[in-house]
Amino acid sequence: MTGIGVCLTGGNTTVVKTAIIGATAYTSLDLIELLVRHPEADITHLGGRREGNPPISSIFPRLRGTCDMELGGLEPADLAEEPDVVFLTLPHGVSQEYAPRYLKAGLPVIDFSADYRLRDISVYEEWYGKHNDPGNVKQAAYGIPELFRDEVRGAKLVANPGCYPTSALLGLAPLAAAGLMESADIIVDSKSGVSGRGNKPDPGSMYCECNENLSAYKVGCHRHEPEIAQGLGMMGLESPDVFFTPHLAPMDRGIQSSMYVKLAEKADDEELEKTMRHRYEDEPFVTVRPGDDQPRTKDVAFSNRCHVAVKALRGDRACVTSVIDNLAKGAASQAVQNMNVMFGLSETLGLH
Amino acid sequence: MTGIGVCLTGGNTTVVKTAIIGATAYTSLDLIELLVRHPEADITHLGGRREGNPPISSIFPRLRGTCDMELGGLEPADLAEEPDVVFLTLPHGVSQEYAPRYLKAGLPVIDFSADYRLRDISVYEEWYGKHNDPGNVKQAAYGIPELFRDEVRGAKLVANPGCYPTSALLGLAPLAAAGLMESADIIVDSKSGVSGRGNKPDPGSMYCECNENLSAYKVGCHRHEPEIAQGLGMMGLESPDVFFTPHLAPMDRGIQSSMYVKLAEKADDEELEKTMRHRYEDEPFVTVRPGDDQPRTKDVAFSNRCHVAVKALRGDRACVTSVIDNLAKGAASQAVQNMNVMFGLSETLGLH
Amino acid sequence: MTGIGVCLTGGNTTVVKTAIIGATAYTSLDLIELLVRHPEADITHLGGRREGNPPISSIFPRLRGTCDMELGGLEPADLAEEPDVVFLTLPHGVSQEYAPRYLKAGLPVIDFSADYRLRDISVYEEWYGKHNDPGNVKQAAYGIPELFRDEVRGAKLVANPGCYPTSALLGLAPLAAAGLMESADIIVDSKSGVSGRGNKPDPGSMYCECNENLSAYKVGCHRHEPEIAQGLGMMGLESPDVFFTPHLAPMDRGIQSSMYVKLAEKADDEELEKTMRHRYEDEPFVTVRPGDDQPRTKDVAFSNRCHVAVKALRGDRACVTSVIDNLAKGAASQAVQNMNVMFGLSETLGLH
Amino acid sequence: MTGIGVCLTGGNTTVVKTAIIGATAYTSLDLIELLVRHPEADITHLGGRREGNPPISSIFPRLRGTCDMELGGLEPADLAEEPDVVFLTLPHGVSQEYAPRYLKAGLPVIDFSADYRLRDISVYEEWYGKHNDPGNVKQAAYGIPELFRDEVRGAKLVANPGCYPTSALLGLAPLAAAGLMESADIIVDSKSGVSGRGNKPDPGSMYCECNENLSAYKVGCHRHEPEIAQGLGMMGLESPDVFFTPHLAPMDRGIQSSMYVKLAEKADDEELEKTMRHRYEDEPFVTVRPGDDQPRTKDVAFSNRCHVAVKALRGDRACVTSVIDNLAKGAASQAVQNMNVMFGLSETLGLH
Repeated sequence: MTGIGVCLTGGNTTVVKTAIIGATAYTSLDLIELLVRHPEADITHLGGRREGNPPISSIFPRLRGTCDMELGGLEPADLAEEPDVVFLTLPHGVSQEYAPRYLKAGLPVIDFSADYRLRDISVYEEWYGKHNDPGNVKQAAYGIPELFRDEVRGAKLVANPGCYPTSALLGLAPLAAAGLMESADIIVDSKSGVSGRGNKPDPGSMYCECNENLSAYKVGCHRHEPEIAQGLGMMGLESPDVFFTPHLAPMDRGIQSSMYVKLAEKADDEELEKTMRHRYEDEPFVTVRPGDDQPRTKDVAFSNRCHVAVKALRGDRACVTSVIDNLAKGAASQAVQNMNVMFGLSETLGLH
Repeated sequence: MTGIGVCLTGGNTTVVKTAIIGATAYTSLDLIELLVRHPEADITHLGGRREGNPPISSIFPRLRGTCDMELGGLEPADLAEEPDVVFLTLPHGVSQEYAPRYLKAGLPVIDFSADYRLRDISVYEEWYGKHNDPGNVKQAAYGIPELFRDEVRGAKLVANPGCYPTSALLGLAPLAAAGLMESADIIVDSKSGVSGRGNKPDPGSMYCECNENLSAYKVGCHRHEPEIAQGLGMMGLESPDVFFTPHLAPMDRGIQSSMYVKLAEKADDEELEKTMRHRYEDEPFVTVRPGDDQPRTKDVAFSNRCHVAVKALRGDRACVTSVIDNLAKGAASQAVQNMNVMFGLSETLGLH
Repeated sequence: MTGIGVCLTGGNTTVVKTAIIGATAYTSLDLIELLVRHPEADITHLGGRREGNPPISSIFPRLRGTCDMELGGLEPADLAEEPDVVFLTLPHGVSQEYAPRYLKAGLPVIDFSADYRLRDISVYEEWYGKHNDPGNVKQAAYGIPELFRDEVRGAKLVANPGCYPTSALLGLAPLAAAGLMESADIIVDSKSGVSGRGNKPDPGSMYCECNENLSAYKVGCHRHEPEIAQGLGMMGLESPDVFFTPHLAPMDRGIQSSMYVKLAEKADDEELEKTMRHRYEDEPFVTVRPGDDQPRTKDVAFSNRCHVAVKALRGDRACVTSVIDNLAKGAASQAVQNMNVMFGLSETLGLH
Repeated sequence: MTGIGVCLTGGNTTVVKTAIIGATAYTSLDLIELLVRHPEADITHLGGRREGNPPISSIFPRLRGTCDMELGGLEPADLAEEPDVVFLTLPHGVSQEYAPRYLKAGLPVIDFSADYRLRDISVYEEWYGKHNDPGNVKQAAYGIPELFRDEVRGAKLVANPGCYPTSALLGLAPLAAAGLMESADIIVDSKSGVSGRGNKPDPGSMYCECNENLSAYKVGCHRHEPEIAQGLGMMGLESPDVFFTPHLAPMDRGIQSSMYVKLAEKADDEELEKTMRHRYEDEPFVTVRPGDDQPRTKDVAFSNRCHVAVKALRGDRACVTSVIDNLAKGAASQAVQNMNVMFGLSETLGLH
């Protein structure tokens, strides 16, 4: 049914042609499956460094029979056909080498790395190391459409956000934007599935080290802390003071964040929930749940959705919770949502 | 090798004879296995309500061949032989019916329920309902030997603590006792394995509802919040203000707690860790780990151990983490530790 | 974005209108999600017995915001709008009450139960109990399109096959149809995820009883044994002698079957694999893999796909393996595939 | 409580002194925990190749506070104190280098590798490669005490059996020894937890590749097939024809084997079960269960126990099932059992 080198798509003639550079990452597997099914998108190139350019389905057996396209090079010159958009799924530090080449060739870029997320280069360099393409950081949109849709719409470069920050910011945005929370003492306690570690075999990613196990890691020193703070700042919070603690939980996918904030003034569950519902009433991918019906990661697994809830704690504090699928809304499906926005397609196209 | 009605033990002649009332609970399975292997303890009675008094090994197939003892009644009069100590593994509200009967018969009781944990009856009744045995609450020791060993030593009634409070209090005790943390804004974010829900089949305990899933529950309204606050008060913290959020994680066993506290004065990692090490240097079951080597639930699974760590967060806050096995140090093995203390045995006997 | 009582669909005007009778079963959750996304299908009725006709999304929180339709009755008269097809996701024995009512009303039925699968009523009654609608059994197509497409195409009643039989028959069909395997000594050893047990809370479905656990069950007496034998018979094998052993494995989804057969004459890996490839070369949902690249359940999770492989064992035996997702190709997505075939739609529409 | 370089033990004076050579393997973690708790054994040396001879507890954080002994060399000369027995937990091919050195030094050896299991050197070399110590193979006892206790009792070298063969042989032994099963067509379908892969980080051992996944592997070509056949031969079966298929299941520990055999003459469940019960009536670690109460891996997890069951299948076939913990009865605890037998200790000492 499918020849080598062909991805099954809907058979449309006028579609967005896409290239994925870094096709062997876990996030790319999700991205490929989304684009193969997307009614208005085609994959025209998969760039990845593997000896002999094997078909992607030899790396991800899930793709056998649905995407047997062969891997090609990473450079613009390696692409036989010019795509309409390039997804970079490369590691931090590597993206900033490739993004300028594709942008120079006039191609819009959606970048999965952290390289274009932090607008203050000195903050980036403190957490990630030297930045070699600071010029393009200025023009990058921070790609959470629910919060920054207008920026994304006109962007040539979209920085696809980190998984933890997506989870934290979608939860806190309504209170931050409405001026209901203070800037001080924002505690973000997040739990992630193991796929967040990527697909490089290292001791910490082994089944017997992760299964039946849960722990915090990088307490007080995870790179997503400044990204969350920046996002809250973009929503109007002055000098937000964020304490972020990530945890590894024994599951493939999902991020659950419990966030403890101080309220600007006393409020009850009803008021807080109403603020959240108001903020998201037109958003197709965000669902506000009552504080007594807590969001579960499984409720959004394999989808682009985010569920949030809020509970007042003795009046002057609140606990906001949110769940997303770290590989989907936290990476691949949010990237497709950004693509839909950039190309003027229906925002929900090919997503659920 | 083993006849019906006999539990394999070491064959000692002078041992502590124990009865378990409520033998079909999950915590009882752990307790039975611990007592069967304990070199100085014997099980002489298993009380549980099941039609026809089947052997306990028909309920827990793990016990086939190691404990095939038949279930008997719950009342003192049902016990053929007088035990030296009675473990009550009954639900909240039920324990308070049976404890007075056993105490009246002169038998020491180690109670797994919440019935004798909260010293302020009005607090108990706010969270659990009517208390019918307030008189015995006064004499109950709160059984975390590392913190209240002297109380336990002389007690006739030990309230075996809640799993979450054990995890939280072992983590926070060193800072609380040393006056290093403030009473305000104590955030306890805990994640528990599913065995914490017990072994009654209900929708929320089903495999397909728990696996690949993580969520908060009872945000702002879990019964262990006042128990944690009481424990901190017992360590000298005045009117501690605790915000406790439990989470359900997809694993059998284990509790990990991340706790965010304000420091009474600025401190760094080294000072905080030193305080913890000092507090626990003679404790066989507590290990202090560096803040960059975070405790994992698997490191203490199936053991009576607790691992803790602390990280200073920008000087005036700290994140304390701790892990225990909720069925072991959070229930059954801590009960055996309490028994060892009560009977003047080596505290580590039969435990690891 | 979505009002109460509305399921998001593509917005097409000429679509297949579907009703699901038994909407609160696990398989229905998958079916609802598939139909919501299907570009040529709409859900017009969800029948299920729950007090007060709550929205389906209150039972399956995954559906919040994508399908908030309220539950209605189970009877033809309860349907406000006449559907084009009815999916019955009712238990064995109950389907046979409802199917005749819908068929009488002129509506095609796709039935998830075993009630119309076994053509020999006496065999059905031996394994499942009294059959009250034997008349309709005769006209039922056995809905594995890859094997019985023509039957399905013209059917008014499709018996959606059991999950284990789908897995076994897709694996064995090529050898059986080509006359390469003997009828004697067919051993089918299958391992299923826990969702195969359905969503009724019972002790055997609890997380702590299934996690970190694996066992055989119903050895020599599982109802799918005669269904597998019947299927092999339909492919030309005379009096096939099937020994079927199901196992419960600690995962949500997936069936892996290892099948040991005697070869009619000696063959090597290459010949056997070639036979399988030839049989499935035009099938969009079946992938044949080399015997040294064994199919994994995760490769087909959440998809309508089946991966199969074959290895010759010392010349006169073979081990055939196959994997499917028990809720998808083993239930809901195969039902949608059957619907596509029945209504002359592209067979892959809304599936992947 | 515990100084660096000391393992907590019972404090006995006359104990078996043990050395573990290859201490960083997963099986060694179990072995260390067993020996630390064993009332009549002490660990005097842990040999392992790690830069700087770190404490074993830095490799296995579970051991913090219970065994903080530092790693030393692998050679006899590296041992400060002469042990009474040496456990070799080295890979296949490496053990045969070290075993002769320890044997020459007069020290009994319990070897975890395959190097001394297969008595026919040509079979070994076909499956594992060149053997450099064939002389010692002859004197090696095959260490399943339940089957070959006398051999083990007098041995200087014990080949600790493979995990799969232990599971298969304990299941089949009663029928084989009683002449009830045929030599032809013995199908062994086994499912193992991931710890069976060891603790080297490779792609196939990663959490996201194993979780929610199940597959066969090495169909028709796994090295344990000849070991199972040899074991059946040792029990009197002539030229047993074994077809062995291993599977990887998403759990840490446990092996479940379903074995399909032809009966020498027709038999029913009762006769077969009786034969099994008779065979194991004096064995403390083996439990025979009724065929309708199938053994589950969790029932024996973290123990030295094996549960078995048998069901007759239409008279002339049977399905035998067995479960063990692959790291315990399949490796470490069986090794301790062998040690107990070799040193004339009570066979159950330190085990459960």
